[in-house]
Amino acid sequence: MTDPAASTSRFAVPPFDPADRGLLSPAWADPAISGVTGDDAIVAAMLELEASWAETLEAAGLATAGAGSAVRDAVRQGTTAGTYDGARLAEASQGGGNPVIPLVKALREATLEPGKAAVHKGLTSQDVLDSALMLIAKRAVAGILADLSPAAEALATLADRYRSTPQVARTLTQHSLPSSFGLKAANWLQGVAHAESRLASLGFPVQCGGAAGTNASLVALGGEPAALAADWAERCGLDAAVAPWQSFRGPVTDLGHALASVTAAAGHVANDVMLLARPEIAELGEPLAEGRGGSSAMPQKQNPALSALIRSAALQAPAQTMQLEMAAALSEDERTGGAWHSEWASLRELLRLAGGAATSLRELVEGLRVFPDRMRRNLDLTGPLLVSERLMLELSPEAEGGRSGVQRAVDAALQAGSDPADQARVLRKELRAVVRSDGAEEDFDARLDELLDPAGYQGDAAGIVDRILKTYEETAAERRHDPQRKKGTRQT
Amino acid sequence: MTDPAASTSRFAVPPFDPADRGLLSPAWADPAISGVTGDDAIVAAMLELEASWAETLEAAGLATAGAGSAVRDAVRQGTTAGTYDGARLAEASQGGGNPVIPLVKALREATLEPGKAAVHKGLTSQDVLDSALMLIAKRAVAGILADLSPAAEALATLADRYRSTPQVARTLTQHSLPSSFGLKAANWLQGVAHAESRLASLGFPVQCGGAAGTNASLVALGGEPAALAADWAERCGLDAAVAPWQSFRGPVTDLGHALASVTAAAGHVANDVMLLARPEIAELGEPLAEGRGGSSAMPQKQNPALSALIRSAALQAPAQTMQLEMAAALSEDERTGGAWHSEWASLRELLRLAGGAATSLRELVEGLRVFPDRMRRNLDLTGPLLVSERLMLELSPEAEGGRSGVQRAVDAALQAGSDPADQARVLRKELRAVVRSDGAEEDFDARLDELLDPAGYQGDAAGIVDRILKTYEETAAERRHDPQRKKGTRQT
Amino acid sequence: MTDPAASTSRFAVPPFDPADRGLLSPAWADPAISGVTGDDAIVAAMLELEASWAETLEAAGLATAGAGSAVRDAVRQGTTAGTYDGARLAEASQGGGNPVIPLVKALREATLEPGKAAVHKGLTSQDVLDSALMLIAKRAVAGILADLSPAAEALATLADRYRSTPQVARTLTQHSLPSSFGLKAANWLQGVAHAESRLASLGFPVQCGGAAGTNASLVALGGEPAALAADWAERCGLDAAVAPWQSFRGPVTDLGHALASVTAAAGHVANDVMLLARPEIAELGEPLAEGRGGSSAMPQKQNPALSALIRSAALQAPAQTMQLEMAAALSEDERTGGAWHSEWASLRELLRLAGGAATSLRELVEGLRVFPDRMRRNLDLTGPLLVSERLMLELSPEAEGGRSGVQRAVDAALQAGSDPADQARVLRKELRAVVRSDGAEEDFDARLDELLDPAGYQGDAAGIVDRILKTYEETAAERRHDPQRKKGTRQT
Amino acid sequence: MTDPAASTSRFAVPPFDPADRGLLSPAWADPAISGVTGDDAIVAAMLELEASWAETLEAAGLATAGAGSAVRDAVRQGTTAGTYDGARLAEASQGGGNPVIPLVKALREATLEPGKAAVHKGLTSQDVLDSALMLIAKRAVAGILADLSPAAEALATLADRYRSTPQVARTLTQHSLPSSFGLKAANWLQGVAHAESRLASLGFPVQCGGAAGTNASLVALGGEPAALAADWAERCGLDAAVAPWQSFRGPVTDLGHALASVTAAAGHVANDVMLLARPEIAELGEPLAEGRGGSSAMPQKQNPALSALIRSAALQAPAQTMQLEMAAALSEDERTGGAWHSEWASLRELLRLAGGAATSLRELVEGLRVFPDRMRRNLDLTGPLLVSERLMLELSPEAEGGRSGVQRAVDAALQAGSDPADQARVLRKELRAVVRSDGAEEDFDARLDELLDPAGYQGDAAGIVDRILKTYEETAAERRHDPQRKKGTRQT
Repeated sequence: MTDPAASTSRFAVPPFDPADRGLLSPAWADPAISGVTGDDAIVAAMLELEASWAETLEAAGLATAGAGSAVRDAVRQGTTAGTYDGARLAEASQGGGNPVIPLVKALREATLEPGKAAVHKGLTSQDVLDSALMLIAKRAVAGILADLSPAAEALATLADRYRSTPQVARTLTQHSLPSSFGLKAANWLQGVAHAESRLASLGFPVQCGGAAGTNASLVALGGEPAALAADWAERCGLDAAVAPWQSFRGPVTDLGHALASVTAAAGHVANDVMLLARPEIAELGEPLAEGRGGSSAMPQKQNPALSALIRSAALQAPAQTMQLEMAAALSEDERTGGAWHSEWASLRELLRLAGGAATSLRELVEGLRVFPDRMRRNLDLTGPLLVSERLMLELSPEAEGGRSGVQRAVDAALQAGSDPADQARVLRKELRAVVRSDGAEEDFDARLDELLDPAGYQGDAAGIVDRILKTYEETAAERRHDPQRKKGTRQT
Repeated sequence: MTDPAASTSRFAVPPFDPADRGLLSPAWADPAISGVTGDDAIVAAMLELEASWAETLEAAGLATAGAGSAVRDAVRQGTTAGTYDGARLAEASQGGGNPVIPLVKALREATLEPGKAAVHKGLTSQDVLDSALMLIAKRAVAGILADLSPAAEALATLADRYRSTPQVARTLTQHSLPSSFGLKAANWLQGVAHAESRLASLGFPVQCGGAAGTNASLVALGGEPAALAADWAERCGLDAAVAPWQSFRGPVTDLGHALASVTAAAGHVANDVMLLARPEIAELGEPLAEGRGGSSAMPQKQNPALSALIRSAALQAPAQTMQLEMAAALSEDERTGGAWHSEWASLRELLRLAGGAATSLRELVEGLRVFPDRMRRNLDLTGPLLVSERLMLELSPEAEGGRSGVQRAVDAALQAGSDPADQARVLRKELRAVVRSDGAEEDFDARLDELLDPAGYQGDAAGIVDRILKTYEETAAERRHDPQRKKGTRQT
Repeated sequence: MTDPAASTSRFAVPPFDPADRGLLSPAWADPAISGVTGDDAIVAAMLELEASWAETLEAAGLATAGAGSAVRDAVRQGTTAGTYDGARLAEASQGGGNPVIPLVKALREATLEPGKAAVHKGLTSQDVLDSALMLIAKRAVAGILADLSPAAEALATLADRYRSTPQVARTLTQHSLPSSFGLKAANWLQGVAHAESRLASLGFPVQCGGAAGTNASLVALGGEPAALAADWAERCGLDAAVAPWQSFRGPVTDLGHALASVTAAAGHVANDVMLLARPEIAELGEPLAEGRGGSSAMPQKQNPALSALIRSAALQAPAQTMQLEMAAALSEDERTGGAWHSEWASLRELLRLAGGAATSLRELVEGLRVFPDRMRRNLDLTGPLLVSERLMLELSPEAEGGRSGVQRAVDAALQAGSDPADQARVLRKELRAVVRSDGAEEDFDARLDELLDPAGYQGDAAGIVDRILKTYEETAAERRHDPQRKKGTRQT
Repeated sequence: MTDPAASTSRFAVPPFDPADRGLLSPAWADPAISGVTGDDAIVAAMLELEASWAETLEAAGLATAGAGSAVRDAVRQGTTAGTYDGARLAEASQGGGNPVIPLVKALREATLEPGKAAVHKGLTSQDVLDSALMLIAKRAVAGILADLSPAAEALATLADRYRSTPQVARTLTQHSLPSSFGLKAANWLQGVAHAESRLASLGFPVQCGGAAGTNASLVALGGEPAALAADWAERCGLDAAVAPWQSFRGPVTDLGHALASVTAAAGHVANDVMLLARPEIAELGEPLAEGRGGSSAMPQKQNPALSALIRSAALQAPAQTMQLEMAAALSEDERTGGAWHSEWASLRELLRLAGGAATSLRELVEGLRVFPDRMRRNLDLTGPLLVSERLMLELSPEAEGGRSGVQRAVDAALQAGSDPADQARVLRKELRAVVRSDGAEEDFDARLDELLDPAGYQGDAAGIVDRILKTYEETAAERRHDPQRKKGTRQT
């Protein structure tokens, strides 16, 4: 606004291209993700909506014959000619507060008769922008699912393969009890499957209300607004809407929540991988790939770059979801000044963060390196006291003094210092003393071997894995059979 | 932690009761809401879960006969005796980081044989706390729906009654086109119905995983974990879960999103009411009630207190939802240190905010005062140019110069100053000149009267109202018929 | 990552440029703002830091003579040749998780001897990225202040000019008591001056710690790290730092808070302008300017576009500030995986939002249209009861029955209906009856005229304006005298 | 609002006390913290302000002699008698949207003549509530500093003592280069000292504006508002304000940012401690204390309970800060409906979170257990390649082929497998071959011993520690000398 040349207050820097291409957002700086959500894609979506609308009007007899193809030609030729330049539109959007106004102006100028009068006829900026964002979202969500589904498959495979591979469970950072790596993978899968389900239930409704949400000009033209909106949605691949939703933002907040479910599910995996790939733990490793995670100065260093990217996305998504919820909470009038505007960038950012997280998650879990030996070694770190719960449960009935007898043995082991071997020695000795072993000493020793083997105390880990996998597979099959099942974003 | 007496650094204030009873949160300071979500209610829910669990164990033959009733007695008698005092538990929770540890200690001490050994047997703190919060949430959500449904009904009635009552539509704060107050109410209804739908789709799954999420001790005891968990859920009124969800937080984030949908829907209404009840606009008024909105110093002042309470809740909910999404994004290990802990207060706060918003919303919309005369007067403020869109559409075909002919007439009116009467005079004169009126002058004047009447240009407002009401009623009927329909929080 | 061509899962759309140029962020889509914070500017800042560093090394004898100018040449020529293309760097940044790695690679390749070995010698990615963001921030903050200071001046002028222009004060949306528009402007000024002060107290420290924050390689080279860092900061225009701050994020969170102060101060103005420019209130108007706020379909409509832009910025900044605070709260290790990465985009977005808000604020307040007549008319809307507080205070001492006597008169007026004229008539009659007026009836009437004139009951409005202006001017003068005064972001 | 008894929709639960005493917030469930910020403390602060105000009025001759002590008596006696019961006030606050209205009513009833008329005379609810929250904040901040300062001292001691104790630096979770534990402690100290500084710069201004922010009734009474406000502030221990700040929320947002600095600084320490206390790393341990971190089922488990509490606080504070920034951004009118109300609970929650974090931090760092042996063992995990940077720098000048000669040796070691001993053997052999060693082979071996010892490659770690300690001590000394130095929250 301030003319840089006319003012000494402006910084003496060359006029840089203002573009953000993801330099500060490696989480989504993959053109496969950023491309479909960039300014140009949004301009293209808005133009697609405008051209489809002219066709809708023509088909309903509300625009001259040929109007639809005239507008579509103007879209096609203008796009090639650079008529709808994103940078110029962005700058021009400041005048009226949204990019549709200058875009419509340019499109109208570029459209030949008999299309000119049909351009944007009966629409308002919000119709085009909300619908365009839904279109972009629908495409991006399809892309996210295309990465999320194989990621879920890969997790299901890990869960299945490692269902009984011993790994220590950690709670509040400390060793808790033995578990299996398969169960960890199944728990990751719960999140990814939940995110898939949230995404699959979304609707992408068209917004069509006209200047005031009443479709007044369509009625004045003799049209039936609901039928026109449905035809428009059909042409663009959007869902029909019960009614205009310009002041009701449920479709946007549902989308935000579903996208945050994606980043949370991916973040859950990434957090665990980053932790378990630490050199002191070393139970997992990111896939090795050229150019991934290297460090110029430190040849021995392999950074968990995929996990760091995913985690950065997971940390950023909640604030963007909050922004969408806040805009909904601030809805006022038939179009809210400021709050509506605050949705756009957050919605795009969420699509990008979820897209980046899904792509990186797929790469991460499809190539995840699993080190069962190291899992086993860490499991043994804590020593025999890791299974003291089991000892209490299984030996108390036959111990002198019952529960407190076994407890005394455990306490003695705890006093024996921090070396697991010392603890095991004392524990065995004390348990032998306290348990009324009717069998031979060797038998009791063999039983103790079994009882003290953490790998034997995984509880229902494999069973839980089975149940998670079964539910996952049933739901996935259901989705394949009935992809058009009732969506969740109908009004109610 | 620091002993206040031993330190000069502690503020010289009497030892106050630390309780928060809503003094700073009038949005939910109604005991009907804060009671069911307060510390005592949560302690009661945890105790209910512990007693039910002992019964589950006994029924499965994993606890001595009589254990269940012994624990239940200890719960009942201890509650009466103040054994499980919330304040003491809160303070003691600092030691281990959660309130379950001291609660279980107190319950075990209070339980007579043969129940003592069954207390908390095979459970972990997270099982009890997560399940207790689900139980509290289920009750609170039922209460929220009990207010939200009549609020939706009241909105449906408003939408129906005022479907054609003229009111100006406002976009970005300015007059846009005529609409109806019924359509505004129907748009509010979209949000409330959406929130109802989100709440109705929630599941409230039991969490039962034991120390490491493997149910190891239940297996060691010879039990079948999935069956035990299902029985426990049944006894407490919770839903069975596919699997333990200690590191997968979908049930919590789905709940957060649904609750934010409630506050957003209510906030939408409140924002509009606060605005439209301003003295300069005066189209709506809050219900008049003793003690509501009064001001001691200013007798003429009637504050929109219900709307302010609702709006304050709507503004606070998104941050709490964000907190839940962030905790999910930070999930790590089999129980996350810090992140899990950060969920509890936010979940409760959301239940309270949504509860307060729903109650106030019901009171607000059931008693909303509507002033159609004032709506009409404000509609006329902008004058004939409000319907210039209509003039362009309807008169262009018969005007000299077509569209630009009518445009010139409109421009001339715009130049005539800001008085609507002046604008109308000029506009009529210019339109008379430019439109090839074949009929008599009076006929054209009558037609202009009709064209310039904003009440006649409501577009499809009534039709949109009808469609919103129809969908609302169908969904509500469906819900009545099939209240147990498939829930949304199954894993996938 | 996934090859779009190789996969059917990718959406069938042309490969779009992923750039975001502000199409969805009209709040900052002014190239004067987005340019200095875009990817290219950041690349330029990183290159400037690398070139300066080589000069620092050379000056300290740690690089061969000529190394500095060789690197600077490579920067200059490579920039012209497009060697450091932002899009390519963004994409390549995914490999290692940050854009410095590919940038350094490209720079090293482009640098001739004897500079090659000096490129990035002893630095780590975080040194360059953190320092580059500080450099960008410093420039952007200078630009923000260059708009904020004239905005403050304009507000001071408004406060001064309208210090006694009657306007009703509104609390919780309702008329409260008379005030002056000058006081409103002065209250706005408090916020803008606070933001100026926050910005002026910021430091922009260089980050220089090497791979592990120990500057090990500089020591190995024989350098003095603190002196080298100080020299580097000097060359680039950054502040020296007490120590590396790679895991201590105070400089970033302080910056975030200061920038949110800018958007909040601007948002405060915008909220009031949007409200007071509503047609029913009409006390203020945005500056009229070609292309601002127009609507294609509705000629009579003038949207408050500047305020909407500002408000959208104000609504978005808090989430970004939160993101920075969250990253600080998650600091771990000597460089945090994921959390550090989550700062970058938020910091840039905050700079842009604050930049856009400041520019639009300046335009808004420098051209704000003020309508004192309308302020007066709205003030009279509420009628004589607006000053009932005054009547109670001034007439009670001489009224029969004291305070309750006057109260009865006020109550009678309240019962007289909602027409201010009726209320005034009744009130005057009752007050005449209740007050022991010793003087003639005309005298009392004249006194009542005075007492009932809301313009005469502005309290200390003008005095408060004076105090705010005085503090503002003193602080501004102080800042002019001592621009280098002690900064706030030194460590402690 | 809904009568539970009259409705079947209310859950069939006993009427629970709604109090929140911290059961779900172990981070601050210490009565020393929650007490000074609970509802009762806030009621006490409001009453203290009301009593002081009556004294201010009396001293200025604006209230009858004896009014001040009459109000103070009513405060004192009513407090003892339970007249100002928090629960009842909380519930009653729903009527007008804030707790001051019912409190003033109760106080006025309880006050004997000649005090009755002086109660709240000339004040508005916001004056009392904003000022009370500032009073509470001032006390709580003093308490926070009383814990934070010893925590800083303890960190300074750790930094000093362990300045050269080798510990590996970790970046993005991987081993980077050797550093020292003292430097880690010094980096923690940077954050704590920053937080101290932010807190110490805060002002706690009184809010005194009357119904409309004009102090109209004080002027009508013949008072000088600025002098009265200053006297009031003096009596209560608050700071004088330049002007009323009811619509300018800088004092609140500055407070929020300072408190988030506390939780971030503490969180930084807690994150590192939780990580480094993992059994696989085991470089640090929380203080051992009775009842801290125990687990009933797992005797061997010691949870890092203090760190978990701190981390939970650190994760929750940013959302609350955001809430305050958002309320400031939404400021409108002379008192904002909803947004003002949304500040209160967040401000209190922040005080509690920061209070809890500071107390736990002090306990944590004063008793932190440090295990240098384990630090050394982990440092050796990565083997000789950890110092490859050093080898490149120091040996390249004398190696055949220079830099690439040494690089070849390093590469050969990398190929030698993952065992550090193997790597060392190969590396030594290759380096011997490539470096033109003029001295005897033993000499070179001795030199290699030195070069390969990670403890010898800590760079400037100790120097950085010194600089951080020096700045910390200077600032602390400055603060002791001049505690009243110019505060940061004056308007500008």
